[in-house]
Amino acid sequence: MAKDFVKRSENYSEWYNQLVVRADLAENSAVRGCMVIKPYGYAIWEKMHDALDKMFKDTGHVNAYFPLFIPKSFLSREADHVKGFAKECAVVTHYRLKTNEEGNGVIVDPEARLEEELIVRPTSETIIWSTYKNWIKSYRDLPILCNQWANVVRWEMRTRMFLRTAEFLWQEGHTAHATREEAEAEARKMLDVYADFAENFMAVPVIKGVKSPNERFAGALDTYCIEAMMQDGKALQAGTSHFLGQNFAKAFDVKFLNKENQLEHVWATSWGVSTRLMGALIMTHSDDNGLVLPPKLAPIQCAIVPIYKTDEQLAMMDEKVAPIVEALKKKGISVKYDNRTEYKPGWKFNEYEFKGVPVRLAIGPRDLENGTCEVCRRDTLEKNNVALEGIVDYVENLLNEIQANLLKKAADYREANTRKVDTWDEFLVEIEKGGFLLCHWDGTTETEEKIKELTKATIRCIAYDAPEEEGKCILTGKPSKRRVIFARSY
Amino acid sequence: MAKDFVKRSENYSEWYNQLVVRADLAENSAVRGCMVIKPYGYAIWEKMHDALDKMFKDTGHVNAYFPLFIPKSFLSREADHVKGFAKECAVVTHYRLKTNEEGNGVIVDPEARLEEELIVRPTSETIIWSTYKNWIKSYRDLPILCNQWANVVRWEMRTRMFLRTAEFLWQEGHTAHATREEAEAEARKMLDVYADFAENFMAVPVIKGVKSPNERFAGALDTYCIEAMMQDGKALQAGTSHFLGQNFAKAFDVKFLNKENQLEHVWATSWGVSTRLMGALIMTHSDDNGLVLPPKLAPIQCAIVPIYKTDEQLAMMDEKVAPIVEALKKKGISVKYDNRTEYKPGWKFNEYEFKGVPVRLAIGPRDLENGTCEVCRRDTLEKNNVALEGIVDYVENLLNEIQANLLKKAADYREANTRKVDTWDEFLVEIEKGGFLLCHWDGTTETEEKIKELTKATIRCIAYDAPEEEGKCILTGKPSKRRVIFARSY
Repeated sequence: MAKDFVKRSENYSEWYNQLVVRADLAENSAVRGCMVIKPYGYAIWEKMHDALDKMFKDTGHVNAYFPLFIPKSFLSREADHVKGFAKECAVVTHYRLKTNEEGNGVIVDPEARLEEELIVRPTSETIIWSTYKNWIKSYRDLPILCNQWANVVRWEMRTRMFLRTAEFLWQEGHTAHATREEAEAEARKMLDVYADFAENFMAVPVIKGVKSPNERFAGALDTYCIEAMMQDGKALQAGTSHFLGQNFAKAFDVKFLNKENQLEHVWATSWGVSTRLMGALIMTHSDDNGLVLPPKLAPIQCAIVPIYKTDEQLAMMDEKVAPIVEALKKKGISVKYDNRTEYKPGWKFNEYEFKGVPVRLAIGPRDLENGTCEVCRRDTLEKNNVALEGIVDYVENLLNEIQANLLKKAADYREANTRKVDTWDEFLVEIEKGGFLLCHWDGTTETEEKIKELTKATIRCIAYDAPEEEGKCILTGKPSKRRVIFARSY
Repeated sequence: MAKDFVKRSENYSEWYNQLVVRADLAENSAVRGCMVIKPYGYAIWEKMHDALDKMFKDTGHVNAYFPLFIPKSFLSREADHVKGFAKECAVVTHYRLKTNEEGNGVIVDPEARLEEELIVRPTSETIIWSTYKNWIKSYRDLPILCNQWANVVRWEMRTRMFLRTAEFLWQEGHTAHATREEAEAEARKMLDVYADFAENFMAVPVIKGVKSPNERFAGALDTYCIEAMMQDGKALQAGTSHFLGQNFAKAFDVKFLNKENQLEHVWATSWGVSTRLMGALIMTHSDDNGLVLPPKLAPIQCAIVPIYKTDEQLAMMDEKVAPIVEALKKKGISVKYDNRTEYKPGWKFNEYEFKGVPVRLAIGPRDLENGTCEVCRRDTLEKNNVALEGIVDYVENLLNEIQANLLKKAADYREANTRKVDTWDEFLVEIEKGGFLLCHWDGTTETEEKIKELTKATIRCIAYDAPEEEGKCILTGKPSKRRVIFARSY
């Protein structure tokens, strides 16, 4: 076990911070609120990127790239958007530095002031809809199904790596449609894609639902979301998909000639997930021994460590292992045979355990004689002696089993920490224990905000599958038709 | 042929601008100097990205991500770097907007001024070397072989899409080494990777060489480059790889304990290619009929257009073509069967021709009877009737042939426009004709700058393979040991 690594039960928040740094995922940079994503962390993000990108393309989307900067005036075009969004941004005011005449260094050239300030995009609806205006003339130009992989900046005061950083990486889909129905269907479809990705790649079970008006994206008519539960019982919003109605089309005057030759405003959606998913991934599966990765997103799925005393033994192992490595690669399994001589096997075991490598094989001299190896799975830390004959299939099956087990474990945890609460007194007790509380709510923003003020809990979503049920609001006792999910959140 | 499309011979520059827009590659945005890369253009860039990324990984590199912002003070740490680089940048001075109290819109909140201004990265040596300081303690931590895919901003006054834009996309490799030899070898190796990519994917022949001191990257000891010739005879620098010596290690105090337990400064390289490659690709191959794409980078390699009069005929063609499409896909060929009924075949032919699709098949009613189709190759516009039997292999071979032909054609063009020039009078005449002029040069920056001033020609590089040869400087008559390449350039 890693030395001095704090336990989740001792200090969950510190456990997360330490894990991110010590597993070589990311670190804070010299720029406040901006992180460096280290190669190991970035390799996981690349796997997320590749899987999502394929899912977007399989559902008919294409990628494009829009400017990093947004003219300041664009942000105030859509009234709700600017209210909810545009405040905490990085503002570019000048375009030139000059040598400091008093000696060392450079200063901002006061003569190089921009006529209109530029905002580093916090999200791209405005710049994209100003572009779509030129792309859309008639119904034949619709739908537009664009996605962008990009960096965005929101000037957060309190940052945490992956969860909330000033700059982060994300994708943002921006689609344009001829009808309300088509746009609504698109927004829901992309939420399904996110849920599919979360469960089948990240092994993170999520609840699909719709946000209360108070938690909607600024400028949206409806915000759909997937919500996950972390191991401290807090909720994490893992992805959102917005039905934007005609708000941005109206703000940027984007109209199309319909089949009846009449001008109409275009309907819109936007949807995004970010490097925040890394936070969700880490906090869902990892344990007091370090990172735990689902095989589908693990940069190294299987590590093989030789245990030897003599160079001869090592040479024999190299020879024995080579065809196994080849066979694993052929199956598309990413494998690392770690025969580095400058590190001891024990150090390597710790390293792969801490970095969440799903399967680790160890081969010692006796294994060579017996034709066996030791297999250790990261999710349960179980060890087994397994015959080298057939080891490739064994590893393949084990990876699938680990992937499934992680999802099941997380789903069980969520199940065990989700409960119905019917009275305010009970709510005050239960919210301190964490988890999802299914409660009735009177549907007003006033009540929602009052509950947040009193308990820090928010409505995470109104789940798609919440059954209709008569009930009384947890706070006001007013009538309610279905339960919503309350939780504290990241 | 596309209507109103200007010819190269009439106005090469306007031809390029029109082509970029009309082939749906990119367009100018509402932000001065920033372009929108449209889906078709971005699909080509994605192919470049994927091929390069694989080559980087195959040579042992990993990806990471560093902050968009650089503290202003970092830029002046390395003296040469700041001189050559840091002036025309986007400067972030504030981090908040607020509602304009006088009514509409938002204004920059004067109270949210940053203590130290942040620069949007024009390149990342400084922020990366400030990070490497914490990563490197001993020789065991070396080499570091990181690459980053990112956007960068350089405030260019005169911009042209892909060739010179304020914001552009690129990759920047930043490596750290224990020895000078290893770093120099890395810088040269990555130039080889770029040349390999340019020739074998882009079908753009390039000259590998080293820059004169005057044209070196700010902060480098040596800059290696690949130079290509465009169809107007101008040179385009398509990629650079820098041997940075210990300059950045010294500026950011990055030392390592060597095997002898002594502290040494680390050796560095950096190397990059950008969306500028799109400009090189377009200007090397395209013609008066539009874009011409090498098959390896074409988003659609083969388009199939049915020509029909009745719905029955179309149905028969759909049926006939389906297995061909499947078989092409199985070979990894990206194919589009365009049976859209809202566009006529002629419109489709123009569309695929203008967008540079390498191979286009057309199938008419008579073809159905005869078991044939018409094959048109984009590079030569040659048309042939070919039997459907065996068409899949035919297309595969044709794509390879087109890829090879484009490279050959471009190499022949360069050959025909490269000539030795030995007198200044001749130089003045020849430089007006364009092309590469192989000339002797006395090795001084003074002469180089004088020639640039008089003719706008610069030294593109001193080619690796330039033979030793006694000669006299074209301008000063002073002795020279080898010819260098002069040209006007993008």
